[in-house]
Amino acid sequence: MKQSETRNLTMMMDLYEMTMANGYFNDQDKDTRVAFDVFYRSNPDGGGFAIFAGLEQILEYIENLHFDEEDIAYFRSLNIFTEDFLAYLKDFKFSGDIYAFKEGTIMYPNEPIITVVAPLIDAQLIETALLAQVNHQSLIATKTRRIVSAAEGRAVSDFGARRAHNMDAAVYGARAAYIGGAVGTATVLAGQMFDIPVSGTMAHSWVMYYKDEFEAFKHYAENYPDGTVLLVDTYDVIGSGIPNAIRVAKEVLEPMGKRLKGIRIDSGDLAYLSKKIRKMLDDAGLEDCKIVVSNSLDEYTITSILQQGGKIDSFGVGERLITAKSDPVFGAVYKISAVEENGTFAPRIKISENVEKITNPGLKDVYRIYDEAGHSVADLITKAGETVDMSAPYRYADPVKPWKNRSFENCTAKKLQQQVVKEGKRIVEPESLEDIRAYVEKQLNTEVWEEEQRFENPHEHYLDMSPAYYEMKMDMLHESRTR
Amino acid sequence: MKQSETRNLTMMMDLYEMTMANGYFNDQDKDTRVAFDVFYRSNPDGGGFAIFAGLEQILEYIENLHFDEEDIAYFRSLNIFTEDFLAYLKDFKFSGDIYAFKEGTIMYPNEPIITVVAPLIDAQLIETALLAQVNHQSLIATKTRRIVSAAEGRAVSDFGARRAHNMDAAVYGARAAYIGGAVGTATVLAGQMFDIPVSGTMAHSWVMYYKDEFEAFKHYAENYPDGTVLLVDTYDVIGSGIPNAIRVAKEVLEPMGKRLKGIRIDSGDLAYLSKKIRKMLDDAGLEDCKIVVSNSLDEYTITSILQQGGKIDSFGVGERLITAKSDPVFGAVYKISAVEENGTFAPRIKISENVEKITNPGLKDVYRIYDEAGHSVADLITKAGETVDMSAPYRYADPVKPWKNRSFENCTAKKLQQQVVKEGKRIVEPESLEDIRAYVEKQLNTEVWEEEQRFENPHEHYLDMSPAYYEMKMDMLHESRTR
Repeated sequence: MKQSETRNLTMMMDLYEMTMANGYFNDQDKDTRVAFDVFYRSNPDGGGFAIFAGLEQILEYIENLHFDEEDIAYFRSLNIFTEDFLAYLKDFKFSGDIYAFKEGTIMYPNEPIITVVAPLIDAQLIETALLAQVNHQSLIATKTRRIVSAAEGRAVSDFGARRAHNMDAAVYGARAAYIGGAVGTATVLAGQMFDIPVSGTMAHSWVMYYKDEFEAFKHYAENYPDGTVLLVDTYDVIGSGIPNAIRVAKEVLEPMGKRLKGIRIDSGDLAYLSKKIRKMLDDAGLEDCKIVVSNSLDEYTITSILQQGGKIDSFGVGERLITAKSDPVFGAVYKISAVEENGTFAPRIKISENVEKITNPGLKDVYRIYDEAGHSVADLITKAGETVDMSAPYRYADPVKPWKNRSFENCTAKKLQQQVVKEGKRIVEPESLEDIRAYVEKQLNTEVWEEEQRFENPHEHYLDMSPAYYEMKMDMLHESRTR
Repeated sequence: MKQSETRNLTMMMDLYEMTMANGYFNDQDKDTRVAFDVFYRSNPDGGGFAIFAGLEQILEYIENLHFDEEDIAYFRSLNIFTEDFLAYLKDFKFSGDIYAFKEGTIMYPNEPIITVVAPLIDAQLIETALLAQVNHQSLIATKTRRIVSAAEGRAVSDFGARRAHNMDAAVYGARAAYIGGAVGTATVLAGQMFDIPVSGTMAHSWVMYYKDEFEAFKHYAENYPDGTVLLVDTYDVIGSGIPNAIRVAKEVLEPMGKRLKGIRIDSGDLAYLSKKIRKMLDDAGLEDCKIVVSNSLDEYTITSILQQGGKIDSFGVGERLITAKSDPVFGAVYKISAVEENGTFAPRIKISENVEKITNPGLKDVYRIYDEAGHSVADLITKAGETVDMSAPYRYADPVKPWKNRSFENCTAKKLQQQVVKEGKRIVEPESLEDIRAYVEKQLNTEVWEEEQRFENPHEHYLDMSPAYYEMKMDMLHESRTR
């Protein structure tokens, strides 16, 4: 954890958080409590779900939030803030409450993943860092899951650091990839910080350093007899790489009582080459030698290679995972939902020309609804504190088809948000990455319909509303229209 | 600079850098000097050039390179390294030489942007961090330049932090965007670290906090009478946002002797709305009120909006800039080019099935060739130390059309790499970001053909070779084929 402990990311914000804060402070509004929701509007890559990741880093950020002298000096230099406000920043600490989905929760559009209930300035200032963390890690966890599904049980490792959008993207990307189901990463700093399994063997430079490919392989095998994985595509995979690898297996490893663990190819037609290589290795009695492939892979290329019968044991996935190349923007937003007025939270709604941009107003609860077999059939938004009684059929409103009369029968409901910060103090222990990863696995294997996990045109998870919540939202829309 | 000083990014590497290093160490090869080149194979988005960015952060990284006790303990825990090697790491410092293009140089595929000449382990260990930095910053600088060109002189600001791939991507992305021609950023930490102009006004939450849009605008104007920019699309741009903004201009600002500086729209059809708004503002005597737009912009949407006559003064560009959404991978690689043998550097070449993946071997120099008018007409690779005399016609080899007999006449040649690190010590002062940004501007305005700056199907910059270099490369290819 050596990195995050030493970094103060308080200044990682858009300037408008501060211009607003300064205005609220000057107008004596800073202590009014408000609620903000984090939610997103559509799943990446047209998928059926996303994976919530990044909560642990948000909690660390919240606990570290403070302005140093040099930060305040910087703000003063901009000549737009009052001295009283700058003095107030000196002792600023986050003092609000935060509620969030458990990290690793399968999530869907338009439901509040995180809710912040805090004094106005506290709630506003954390917007940018909070979104950047959720957006990045959820994006990479979700993308990785797609790749892992395409690999159909074969190992997927993150090899992306060099193409990541700078250092944090490599390190927190590796964390998110592990949550999404990667078996490990090549990125040492991520391994060190998060205890993720790391792997690594050789680059083309190793092979090119020596005058001869066989000599290069021999040196490697002598150094790593228990984990010899040879990169066979520096010169000519079939003509020299594989023959030299087999020769090393026979002449160097076998006399030591060792087996060649694997070969890796990083270029060429991976379906064609892997089949040809498998045969060459098998013919040489190296049936246990694994074939690892890398080179611009993603869920689409992996699906296609496997459809063509590629003989592959493990995938190293780099740039297209670590940048989520096919859809590199995760669009979670942070919208105000309520403002305290005379001791109660009055809902706020944002109207938009685009229907999908109309927000869900007010303080609310979110439940996941499970059928008797444990499948998650829908999510449900209620007004905060509403009783959700599933012991009898529960009538709900479907906001997409509000004319239909529908009920949940024989279902159970689980509240998805839990309080994680209380009056500025974190009240949950860090979760182990292994537990988060296992939780993702469990949900996708036992709770989430397969139909939601399809790449193309997946089933859209229902986000329903309690009758009371739906009525409140409709009333607000009508009121705004008649204003 | 508070962030970078406190971070040790030595562990930001792929594990294979260490497995190779350990092998080289055990085999007594660690002091052999080698050369590696950084280069990339194609310009992002099918463009005609890219912008080299990130050098300053590379130099900081190189100077900080060292392994802490806890790093060594981590490596020990992996059970793959020898104790002698781990002991060696304790005092490890980078001791090699680095040559690089000046930051902000317009660059082209397949030429060495950076060359590292160093003992084998030193050269190998820095691969991952060096590539991640160059790849990220060059990607964002290049993408930003495309957006800036599309805006045809209108200001472009970086608004992307919340959608960046974590914190570094926001901060170093803002730096790169500024190099590429953005006028500033919304990201406070980037402003603080790099002295980039910052801007920011209000979010929808400001408008929604108040019960009434006019009240919200009024409060803002009273707090910032000299820089009132109002976000007008929370409820209904034409029906309420603009009328309320005009009312604030008349009732709040004019009595103070102030003018409404601008309005911002963040949704809807920006071409249609901006024309309508311009008319409404002009009719109200607010001809000097600027129209700022944001909402998923990039070079393509901006071009299209301007073609339709959008009346826009300034663009806030977020997610598509900070993630380089249309092509989020910059593919610079780090390839060994030479190994010292008996006091001279013997060239190395990587052959590949894909012609474009064959490397340029050996120690080399790169020149940019200018015609009499100062236009850059080609780049030229020579063997290291070759004399390039342009006082007479200079015959060169065109590696794409080698049968042609071509010469540079009345041209000048400028060497593109300069030494930046000597025996592990940085020998160049940090350059100011303003200078780097101005250098980009100067090259694109006076040196680089407009035809290379087209979005679609741009002119491909020539990368030529001296006859001696070309012959050396061909000899190596022939030799490898006959092996």
